[in-house]
Amino acid sequence: MSALSFTPMDHDDFELFWPTFKAIVAEQYTYAIEPDISYQAAYTLWCETPKATFAVKDSTGELVGSYYLKANASGPGGHVCNCGYMVTSAARGKGVARAMCEHSQTMAQAAGFQAMQFNAVVSTNEVAVALWQRLGFSIVGTVPKAYRHASLGWVDTHVMHKFL
Amino acid sequence: MSALSFTPMDHDDFELFWPTFKAIVAEQYTYAIEPDISYQAAYTLWCETPKATFAVKDSTGELVGSYYLKANASGPGGHVCNCGYMVTSAARGKGVARAMCEHSQTMAQAAGFQAMQFNAVVSTNEVAVALWQRLGFSIVGTVPKAYRHASLGWVDTHVMHKFL
Repeated sequence: MSALSFTPMDHDDFELFWPTFKAIVAEQYTYAIEPDISYQAAYTLWCETPKATFAVKDSTGELVGSYYLKANASGPGGHVCNCGYMVTSAARGKGVARAMCEHSQTMAQAAGFQAMQFNAVVSTNEVAVALWQRLGFSIVGTVPKAYRHASLGWVDTHVMHKFL
Repeated sequence: MSALSFTPMDHDDFELFWPTFKAIVAEQYTYAIEPDISYQAAYTLWCETPKATFAVKDSTGELVGSYYLKANASGPGGHVCNCGYMVTSAARGKGVARAMCEHSQTMAQAAGFQAMQFNAVVSTNEVAVALWQRLGFSIVGTVPKAYRHASLGWVDTHVMHKFL
């Protein structure tokens, strides 16, 4: 997907993003977030707690996704960052996740981070696992049954890592 | 060490605990916490964010350590808990960490958690790694150079896990 724009997410963007966020966490296939999280708690989690959050739009101005970037730990662990990505259902399969991950790595490097870590990639989310691997991430650990998948039951999660 | 008491940590306990907390994070050998964290931020992190925090005292009433217990993730990840333990310098080598970890597993089970996960056990903290292994935890992942050790430089961290 070409001509994507990345801008800091504002309140209007989050309102456009909320149906996507709400559907993804309600589904309980990929994110370890309360499925009935409130709008305000979601805004805090996605936009206020992280160091940066981007709204991603296509060339027509349509919102296609969003991601956040934050430190994964503090002090002596503060050189490793963490990101989360969500794509709108209409924009799936068009390379938005790849574009977001590449953008996030550039932003993370610019902010001085030396590595990126995903703490809990649900093992059954094979599309995501394969994409992160193609983008240079390695599975450095697997936590048994750490995720209660809404249709598959207890499934493993992967810790994935890449030096930037 | 026998006759330890475990009570919910109150403000007075935290004041007794603060020199231990401050020294451990300033040392930068084991915890990924800002080394110059403020008293208030430390109180929030250790006592307010977790589900429960315990002050541990010996039979003379002396504070020997503290631990917190919290969920390691939310929603479909909320069945896995996380704990952090600190022992006062005077009480090291007396089994306090073991006693705290055993107590925390009992508390975690009572709260309905099904597993306990440590996200970043510094690999050079061999005493801790060996103790958690003796207590039934497994290394399920290793993140390369995720911790900047104050005297050893970049060192790995382990993800450790145990079903309860």
